[in-house]
Amino acid sequence: MQPIKVYADRRSQPSRAVIIFCRVNQIEFEEVTVDLFKSQHLSPQFRKINPMGQVPAIVDGRFKLFESHAILRYLASVFPGVADHWYPADLFTRAKIESILDWHHSNLRRGAATLVMHTALAPFLGLRTSPEAVKQAEKLLMQSLGTIESVWLNGGAKFLLGSPQPSIADLSLVCEIMQLEILGDDVRDRFLGAHEKILIWMDNVKRATSPHFEEAHELLFQVKARMLSNNAAAANQASEPSTKHKIASKL
Amino acid sequence: MQPIKVYADRRSQPSRAVIIFCRVNQIEFEEVTVDLFKSQHLSPQFRKINPMGQVPAIVDGRFKLFESHAILRYLASVFPGVADHWYPADLFTRAKIESILDWHHSNLRRGAATLVMHTALAPFLGLRTSPEAVKQAEKLLMQSLGTIESVWLNGGAKFLLGSPQPSIADLSLVCEIMQLEILGDDVRDRFLGAHEKILIWMDNVKRATSPHFEEAHELLFQVKARMLSNNAAAANQASEPSTKHKIASKL
Repeated sequence: MQPIKVYADRRSQPSRAVIIFCRVNQIEFEEVTVDLFKSQHLSPQFRKINPMGQVPAIVDGRFKLFESHAILRYLASVFPGVADHWYPADLFTRAKIESILDWHHSNLRRGAATLVMHTALAPFLGLRTSPEAVKQAEKLLMQSLGTIESVWLNGGAKFLLGSPQPSIADLSLVCEIMQLEILGDDVRDRFLGAHEKILIWMDNVKRATSPHFEEAHELLFQVKARMLSNNAAAANQASEPSTKHKIASKL
Repeated sequence: MQPIKVYADRRSQPSRAVIIFCRVNQIEFEEVTVDLFKSQHLSPQFRKINPMGQVPAIVDGRFKLFESHAILRYLASVFPGVADHWYPADLFTRAKIESILDWHHSNLRRGAATLVMHTALAPFLGLRTSPEAVKQAEKLLMQSLGTIESVWLNGGAKFLLGSPQPSIADLSLVCEIMQLEILGDDVRDRFLGAHEKILIWMDNVKRATSPHFEEAHELLFQVKARMLSNNAAAANQASEPSTKHKIASKL
């Protein structure tokens, strides 16, 4: 049987979730890198795979699919080797996982992704930033982290919903939170420092999917290191007004 | 067997989707109104049903669930009388429906709900409006309508994905678009007028779920009529500067 194709950019959090899921569950796949910084996601070729121009997307034979949660559900359903805890057949447990996945879109993802876009990425991508959007995203992100702790991680649960093993919701949400790394340690700690249960849970997800979790996040940490060194260089040179504009345009 | 409880405010689009789904599929339920304008969704009593303080939510025996898509999936799965087309057992068809439901959150819903909140509802709820948010919401809404037509309604399909019968995605998305009614006919037509396929599809969903669709939307049209008459009164009196402030504070 042909391996599936996974179209991904490992700098994208839902791309990493799909890659880690495949690796952990020994789903054979060919990774096709779609470089977001080179706008490859917007190319006519890629639009034939995913008309939305977003990663991740998969191709399984003649079947194409986009949206990471839909992909994770599909992979968990069609590959018999995937353990039940990832996407339980029990309708009650599954429904609870669905409600977390749905909640994620308009809360944790919206907060975290908007914040990362308007602070870390916008200067690199030449996009306009909005202080108002940043403020709202920070508020939504902080609220979302509080909600995860109080609703789904209460009572010292190892994973969401008190489960002893992770589901696709654990993987998707933790990959999202990992994206805060590229904001730098200070900003990350401002959000995560006060959320001990979140930190323990993230560590549990990492351990349960190791070494694939770390491997899939290597590129993110490279991006983080490059961004921080660029920012430091810009800050140094910004103190000399004559070179400020030149540096800003290089970022 | 005890009927399920559906906690809803029919002015909320996902509440209507769940109510219509239950009625069409003859799922016995008790509707508990949670008045959003009276902030009943934020009461400690309702937080015990849904800690997120949002409608809709359901209670089935001892089982509680929130997030409308998760609720629709659950109802379609546990009630044997629900026809397969609503949430097909076929994994490929189901996966495609899941990708629409996931896409909805960050696109059509985000565009439409943000626009309605920042234009029609904010003055009534005493919330601050943001011209920037309105502009972005309008753009996202228009793009989303175009995407639905070009990706999921191409080839003269009666329902999304070329299906001859509706799924939970058809119902959820059409209820979302119906919310534009309270912006008034002019604004609604500005978005929907250029999208003939959308209009035909909405009519197909309405016919497939009639008379429950119309019945569930009655309150929305009452709200629309009241808003329009309030706006007209405000516009009339605003021409007399001395009364302007008084009227604004009444809205």
